[in-house]
Amino acid sequence: MTALPLDLPAPDGMLRKEHLHASVSDPVLDTMNFLNEVTLRHPEAISFAPGRPYDGFFDVEEIFTHIRRYLTHLEEQGASSADVRDALFQYGPTAGRIRGLIADSLRQDEGINVPPESVVVTVGCQEAMLLGVRALIAQPEDVLMVSSPCYVGITGVASVLGVAVVAVEEADGGFRCADLRAAVLAEQAKGRRPRAFYITPDHSNPSGTTMPVETRHELLDLAAELGILILEDSPYRLVSPGRQLPTLKSLDRRRSVVHLGSFSKTLFPGARVGYAVADQQVVDGTGHSTLLAEELTKIKSMVTVNTSPLSQAVVAGMLLSADGRAAELNTKTSAYYGEAMSGTLRELDATFPPALRAELGVSWNEPSGGFFLTVNVPFPADTAALARSAEDFGVIWTPMSYFHPDGGGSRGIRLSTSYLTPEDIAEGIARFARFVAAEFAAQAHGQPESR
Amino acid sequence: MTALPLDLPAPDGMLRKEHLHASVSDPVLDTMNFLNEVTLRHPEAISFAPGRPYDGFFDVEEIFTHIRRYLTHLEEQGASSADVRDALFQYGPTAGRIRGLIADSLRQDEGINVPPESVVVTVGCQEAMLLGVRALIAQPEDVLMVSSPCYVGITGVASVLGVAVVAVEEADGGFRCADLRAAVLAEQAKGRRPRAFYITPDHSNPSGTTMPVETRHELLDLAAELGILILEDSPYRLVSPGRQLPTLKSLDRRRSVVHLGSFSKTLFPGARVGYAVADQQVVDGTGHSTLLAEELTKIKSMVTVNTSPLSQAVVAGMLLSADGRAAELNTKTSAYYGEAMSGTLRELDATFPPALRAELGVSWNEPSGGFFLTVNVPFPADTAALARSAEDFGVIWTPMSYFHPDGGGSRGIRLSTSYLTPEDIAEGIARFARFVAAEFAAQAHGQPESR
Repeated sequence: MTALPLDLPAPDGMLRKEHLHASVSDPVLDTMNFLNEVTLRHPEAISFAPGRPYDGFFDVEEIFTHIRRYLTHLEEQGASSADVRDALFQYGPTAGRIRGLIADSLRQDEGINVPPESVVVTVGCQEAMLLGVRALIAQPEDVLMVSSPCYVGITGVASVLGVAVVAVEEADGGFRCADLRAAVLAEQAKGRRPRAFYITPDHSNPSGTTMPVETRHELLDLAAELGILILEDSPYRLVSPGRQLPTLKSLDRRRSVVHLGSFSKTLFPGARVGYAVADQQVVDGTGHSTLLAEELTKIKSMVTVNTSPLSQAVVAGMLLSADGRAAELNTKTSAYYGEAMSGTLRELDATFPPALRAELGVSWNEPSGGFFLTVNVPFPADTAALARSAEDFGVIWTPMSYFHPDGGGSRGIRLSTSYLTPEDIAEGIARFARFVAAEFAAQAHGQPESR
Repeated sequence: MTALPLDLPAPDGMLRKEHLHASVSDPVLDTMNFLNEVTLRHPEAISFAPGRPYDGFFDVEEIFTHIRRYLTHLEEQGASSADVRDALFQYGPTAGRIRGLIADSLRQDEGINVPPESVVVTVGCQEAMLLGVRALIAQPEDVLMVSSPCYVGITGVASVLGVAVVAVEEADGGFRCADLRAAVLAEQAKGRRPRAFYITPDHSNPSGTTMPVETRHELLDLAAELGILILEDSPYRLVSPGRQLPTLKSLDRRRSVVHLGSFSKTLFPGARVGYAVADQQVVDGTGHSTLLAEELTKIKSMVTVNTSPLSQAVVAGMLLSADGRAAELNTKTSAYYGEAMSGTLRELDATFPPALRAELGVSWNEPSGGFFLTVNVPFPADTAALARSAEDFGVIWTPMSYFHPDGGGSRGIRLSTSYLTPEDIAEGIARFARFVAAEFAAQAHGQPESR
């Protein structure tokens, strides 16, 4: 009998971490932990780190109003009092109770025209990503392509599911189709099968880049040609000022796009309500066909069973309050976020005038919306530099390297502007400039800055 | 270049189901789908199929009261109005906001004495199962042992994660430690490593069996000896009448038990709030130690990020209304469920008097609580029999074979009693008896009953 080494019985319930799943040792978790520790250790620092929605416009009483509005809506639609009660208290359908309202808002806000049956309501966009990746990555040779730097949620999903990720690095101006094509062909040459490509086309987290409309068309053509699906994640559009470019999904004529959405930024994070739009046809060996949304729903039944009907009720009430247009609910927030972003850019411009910028070798992009921008610096923006920045200059940011699955971004910094006041932004950028100057000077003297 | 066959580009977004992950073709899903279809096709049938909580005691207005009670509680604890607002609207900590209240209720209701840090609040018990299985099943040789028949949620998790499941069949009287020992040794002999054993010790879904207290002690000793963790799932205890046996976790002196809980039955399903209690120490290569709960929290951050703070607020308000004792909130429901179960047993007794019972070869167990009981019948209780039962006799039930991961249970029927009225139970059992008699007669004539 070949008994494998066991880490239990343990006299005191001790487990060895090496025997736990690799996802608990994901390096992203360690870096995020470090970021949290730095933040806790320096409560007085100004933090450009968290992509936290601004909460000043939230009002507790509205929760009650929204739930009541939804219940009234159900009554108006002919629901009995038992139906209304069950709509809050019982499990409800796995695919969600408010698919119709979401489909309606997608049509009005985003030009995405799909039947409610192709919508799956999820526990935030995170679960939507998990369902999409799980459905599509089926075999050991299947791989997930991601635009890099990328949101840590998607690499987290891959980590939990043990899915191989291939990063397609953004060029200076953002994502390029030629790079995706080359990466897919290289994977295929290795006998692997790229199945999907994850990207945030608008005001990306972390880089802040937005994909031009020509690239969107080009990407849709390329996806069809390469035989991959696009996982489009788009949480920042409706909280950005001005007119947005069309979503990939709204331009999608060949059902190449699975659109992943979240109400965390547009309504509120505490709902934990997101969705996947998956109108692809799935055909089995007998010719029977289903929607991909149905297949995602099956997986959801094994992950969270369903999304809290109570949370869905609040989201529904909010959508109903604006005749289904989430965009209308975000005029104040998008103005706020827009001002925070442009204020940060103004401060950067003022603090690093062109001559200084050139001397230091500092540059940044200029997002028109979203929560994030990238600053390129002339020194390694690593964990040690972050610790010095917090300790010596009272300003916190996120190393861009945290967001590169295959390495890279070592001289990039993500600044998040979403919840800071104008005063914090001005003071924060001033501190940031002093930190950058000190790192530059230390580097010029051949040693890292430290006290 | 070896391009693998691609199922895209599709002229119209067509995917081949064989290219999707195997979990979407899990046979349990098909059987559950069939059950749903039968139920929809026969709306007049009396259904002993769904394990649905009874909803007659729910009151919509209470949702508002509970949320307000929690917010007041936060204020009394010194929270500012911004803190209170954020407690509903913002993301909140991944491990949950109400761990202290849950730890308190576990101490009072269940004799489980753990610090709040060992509790992870989850999106229902389903996510808790997923986190536990994901953390513990790390290598290709790792396997999950389950008491069989078992809840479909645990096999669903295994399916999504691609985890191997080994069924330990219940004997007539329920689970036997000797069978678990033999199964674990057999797996080890094959070079596999059993890591955990999933069981519902009280009023099990689907069989209705409860583990005697001596077996609980024996199982704890055996788990320590074999080096496996026990995943204890226990949703029906507080909604069952009378005094319950001690939980495995309350008897656990060696931290061999991860306790998985749900408020879906004790409070309400629509909250989608459950939890895992994982007070095991995890030690890494450097000697640094964490709680298993922290490791589960990391995985949760990649599955759902966090559990809706709004849902947690309602659950917290409910617990606060009873000074933390969920048991007190369930006096009415446990009496209701208890009466439904004993009423069903009385009807079975009356409808199948001993002589008839012996003649037909019908028997059943007599659970003292929970939602489910098992009826053993003298004919194959398969999908075809279910269709005849619904069509010809107007009564629906669940084939026990649906709950056996490795086959078995072909002559078992699960009856769920949880939400039926006494009238439905009486009429339903009368119909069920006619169905059983007809199947028996048809079998005696060498052919299945059909019209």
